[in-house]
Amino acid sequence: MNETGGLSYAILGTGALGGLYGGLLARAGREVHFLLRSDYEYVSQNGLRVDSPLGDFHLSSVQCYASPDDMSQRMPTVDVAIVAWKTTANDALAETLTKICGPQTIVLVLQNGLDIERVAADCVGAERVLGGCCFLCCNKVGPGHIQHVDYGRIAFGEYARELSGEITPRMQTIAADFQKSGIDMQPAEDLLKVRWSKLVWNIPYNGLSVVLNADTRQLMHHSASATLVEDLMREVCEAASRCGCSIDEAHVTKMLEDTRRMVPYDSSMRLDFLARRPMEVEAIFGNPLRAALQAGYRPSKIEMLYQQLCFLNQSIG
Amino acid sequence: MNETGGLSYAILGTGALGGLYGGLLARAGREVHFLLRSDYEYVSQNGLRVDSPLGDFHLSSVQCYASPDDMSQRMPTVDVAIVAWKTTANDALAETLTKICGPQTIVLVLQNGLDIERVAADCVGAERVLGGCCFLCCNKVGPGHIQHVDYGRIAFGEYARELSGEITPRMQTIAADFQKSGIDMQPAEDLLKVRWSKLVWNIPYNGLSVVLNADTRQLMHHSASATLVEDLMREVCEAASRCGCSIDEAHVTKMLEDTRRMVPYDSSMRLDFLARRPMEVEAIFGNPLRAALQAGYRPSKIEMLYQQLCFLNQSIG
Repeated sequence: MNETGGLSYAILGTGALGGLYGGLLARAGREVHFLLRSDYEYVSQNGLRVDSPLGDFHLSSVQCYASPDDMSQRMPTVDVAIVAWKTTANDALAETLTKICGPQTIVLVLQNGLDIERVAADCVGAERVLGGCCFLCCNKVGPGHIQHVDYGRIAFGEYARELSGEITPRMQTIAADFQKSGIDMQPAEDLLKVRWSKLVWNIPYNGLSVVLNADTRQLMHHSASATLVEDLMREVCEAASRCGCSIDEAHVTKMLEDTRRMVPYDSSMRLDFLARRPMEVEAIFGNPLRAALQAGYRPSKIEMLYQQLCFLNQSIG
Repeated sequence: MNETGGLSYAILGTGALGGLYGGLLARAGREVHFLLRSDYEYVSQNGLRVDSPLGDFHLSSVQCYASPDDMSQRMPTVDVAIVAWKTTANDALAETLTKICGPQTIVLVLQNGLDIERVAADCVGAERVLGGCCFLCCNKVGPGHIQHVDYGRIAFGEYARELSGEITPRMQTIAADFQKSGIDMQPAEDLLKVRWSKLVWNIPYNGLSVVLNADTRQLMHHSASATLVEDLMREVCEAASRCGCSIDEAHVTKMLEDTRRMVPYDSSMRLDFLARRPMEVEAIFGNPLRAALQAGYRPSKIEMLYQQLCFLNQSIG
């Protein structure tokens, strides 16, 4: 901890998510170090700008780093390293963590999907890893310029199975920092349940929005696709249940009803696909599918969606 | 039969398929009556032109009809009515057959899919219905202008279950007419097996080529899509088997190998989709799926492909 009593943070990946959360923490007085790539020069000189329903702000002086090596040389050891880039960039994760983590540094993985904490856990030990799901509508609209549209809640928990079932003191400390910054951060006793519950939405809507080139309203408007959405949700629930994580029937009903009422929404995966960026197919589809198969259950429709997305993903880039 | 000793034919739908087969029969001296829609004026005045590896030809005088009413008023009773339009036009079939068939007229349904003879059977009685699958690469490239690219084989058989297992005399007579015209027409003892065997190819390649916007080479090139093709083929075989029709494992292997060796091919369904014409989703997917469900088997991936195609089909037109 630094003098202000809060924790210090490294933000690995200053895109929409890292820029917003890191920016809010810095605005609230926390010590925050940002790892950037293409925006490094720009943000070093011009700082970071955030437009948000929580108040627009501009951080004129930002602690910027151009690479993990740069961080390892100039950055003091931080309390928490936040993995804020997409899982598609995880090839660089192990090396980055090895370079920048001190012996006590906690790694908080804020990525989509299932078991995406494993890389960090293999690197620093599972007992030093936390994971979280973000419910966030936010875009990077220019260099060092983040546009926060709506939402922002984070649900997070301990990754190590031995620590599951608890809200640990360090979770409370981190949550307090985020909450002081204006972020609705909720500690959860069961990270696995947080992740599977989010997959109930992400698997059908991310996948079908890409394969059928449709937004959420179009998917829910036609009975065949709405039925397929529901079939996929039930497969996710069955897979979760076989993996020891029971999801309430009411959660499926709520996801369907909430989405029907939502304004037409383009999933992040569809935006990636339309922009020809690699999609997070392994994190969101491959890992849950493999977990289900390992538990003796073959979710045919999830498998088919995974096969279709693998095909489409290789046509990118 | 007319004086020439051959049968007389009505071609219902003078598109690529009807124009080619009808044109070849007429060239060989058979009495052929063509039902047209948009091309009626043009063909009445200019005749029918066919470019084909079997020899290019032009029929300057063609017996044309503008509507079923027109046929019922001017056309003599024919021996065989060939249903040559797509199943998506079948709304008009019952009324058309009622108007144009005499008490002895045989109906030969040359359409894709499963159990698409049912409309004709309900109309004239199953014992007067034959069905066939065409293996044909042919396009209509202009009014009254057919371009036959390759293939052309027809496998056909009796629709009535009581006549299944036989090559009936009328099948032999019809096949002789077609063969004299240059068409490789093969009588089959088991129409159901002909239809299911063709679905082994049509279900994966027609469906995935539309949903994944890919030709056959692209589908076979990537391992995820090639595996999915094979999964779907196996579901078709299992569905066929549950419906009392056993398909050899070797057929799947042959279909996969043949398609790998084929030049990149756009399925007719993909061409329909790209041209925003309605796709034959019910004939090729809905009917086999319902047959499987009725036999107590749920082919999940066929069902999902059907759901996806229903969604895409409603976005057309």
